Amino acid sequence: MVKVTQRRRVTRLSADGGVRERADVLAGEEPLEIRVGGRSLSVTMRTPGDDFDMAVGFLHGEGLLVGWEDVAQIDYRSGIGADGQRDYNVVDLTLAEGVPPPDASLERHVYTSSSCGVCGTSSIEAVRRVGRHDLVDDDEAHPLAELLALPDRLREGQTVFDRTGGVHAAGLFLPGDEGLGLACLREDVGRHNAVDKVVGWAIRERGMPLRGAVLQVSGRASFELVQKAAMAGIPTLSAVSAPSSLAAELAEDLGMTLVGFNRGSSLNVYTGRQRVR
Amino acid sequence: MVKVTQRRRVTRLSADGGVRERADVLAGEEPLEIRVGGRSLSVTMRTPGDDFDMAVGFLHGEGLLVGWEDVAQIDYRSGIGADGQRDYNVVDLTLAEGVPPPDASLERHVYTSSSCGVCGTSSIEAVRRVGRHDLVDDDEAHPLAELLALPDRLREGQTVFDRTGGVHAAGLFLPGDEGLGLACLREDVGRHNAVDKVVGWAIRERGMPLRGAVLQVSGRASFELVQKAAMAGIPTLSAVSAPSSLAAELAEDLGMTLVGFNRGSSLNVYTGRQRVR
Repeated sequence: MVKVTQRRRVTRLSADGGVRERADVLAGEEPLEIRVGGRSLSVTMRTPGDDFDMAVGFLHGEGLLVGWEDVAQIDYRSGIGADGQRDYNVVDLTLAEGVPPPDASLERHVYTSSSCGVCGTSSIEAVRRVGRHDLVDDDEAHPLAELLALPDRLREGQTVFDRTGGVHAAGLFLPGDEGLGLACLREDVGRHNAVDKVVGWAIRERGMPLRGAVLQVSGRASFELVQKAAMAGIPTLSAVSAPSSLAAELAEDLGMTLVGFNRGSSLNVYTGRQRVR
Repeated sequence: MVKVTQRRRVTRLSADGGVRERADVLAGEEPLEIRVGGRSLSVTMRTPGDDFDMAVGFLHGEGLLVGWEDVAQIDYRSGIGADGQRDYNVVDLTLAEGVPPPDASLERHVYTSSSCGVCGTSSIEAVRRVGRHDLVDDDEAHPLAELLALPDRLREGQTVFDRTGGVHAAGLFLPGDEGLGLACLREDVGRHNAVDKVVGWAIRERGMPLRGAVLQVSGRASFELVQKAAMAGIPTLSAVSAPSSLAAELAEDLGMTLVGFNRGSSLNVYTGRQRVR
């Protein structure tokens, strides 16, 4: 029962009295359990598909993996679901020899710091401590017109959204001879899952860090999205909607470019203006 | 530094060459650690404000609390942040005598089931097992016109969104002599936080279950939102955007009414048609 989309009967009611029964397509949502060496680290609701990439991207964002060479093996530990069918909702990853296993207190460890209370500043310091890539060295600038075109290019690639209207998207754009090219696009009911899947793809296919890259997301820019982008060495994050205060603070602290309200004809640059030409 | 919104300088760039420096208002985002009896259960990024309600609502959704009588005490365990100021990002709740403490494996426990693999079906069964309110008994129906008016009524109350464009909202509408009345509206960078804050308010002010209530949310309807609404005995969940497949499955299983794409002139009824007149 693991599907990217699912059909369902729905009744559409209109203010003018219209009643229409029809089949609607919904975005798939199922839990995914991520295990490392057999130990459960997290259970997240996600849209099925690209599950290995999601697990790798998630663990990379948590600082457990640096690159693909840190993964010895990854596979489903599927069981028989309550419906009698095999399910594919548990992924178990074995770390390569010599890679330290997650410590017992992993649960969202980057947010907590022993030196002071739980706060935005300590969260930012934790990302700094765990992060491996220095973004400040990379000052590849992109023409404004190219950045303004990204939301439409993302939208064009959103096949699940076309059918359901109910998923977030993340698109990784990499610089090439003809400007920014769409390297990988993923859709998911969870916005951070879409980013994890993109980052996992990049770890497998390209290697880290993603110098010169722009990550375009369909919604808002939260602290977590900036963190995940930063961990992957992505210098520019562009969001269709608003960033949060802590997203902007973290981006500034890391020397990252944060663009918000990118709506085709104008955009806001919150931090890292030097990467917009 | 715990603020609902925060001002920041931003550069607005337009396709026609316009460059405008101005002050922008961003939605506040800070981590909140929720402890029970001194033990840390979760750290979530949230918009500061109504933190006790958020903690109570969250713990209610996890099945740890039934009502306000289960709370002996709740307070900040604040420390001095890295900026030298007091922070208010740790809430510690003491359960009343006789209320069982959370077991060691609480981390998102409702999603996992020992009887079969991790899957949508087991997630639904887990909610059923933990849930306390029987929704099926409550068939209070609402006129279509009243349901169609809810997104605008929610939007009118969104003061943080007006300033930032960057927060989700949840509004609890309760039936009265003049139809549905807005009892509580909360905004947050995290959509489930907004719902937790509304539910926490209701536990404190009204008591559970919320018979006849409609919960209107600004975005999509995920499994988690249906779960949280169901735990609070809310019979109708209405979303401005699309539900996920598992949200619809859970709503159907619990006998809940799930409305999606509520856009003012029409809406989709996914489950529980009998509560729409």
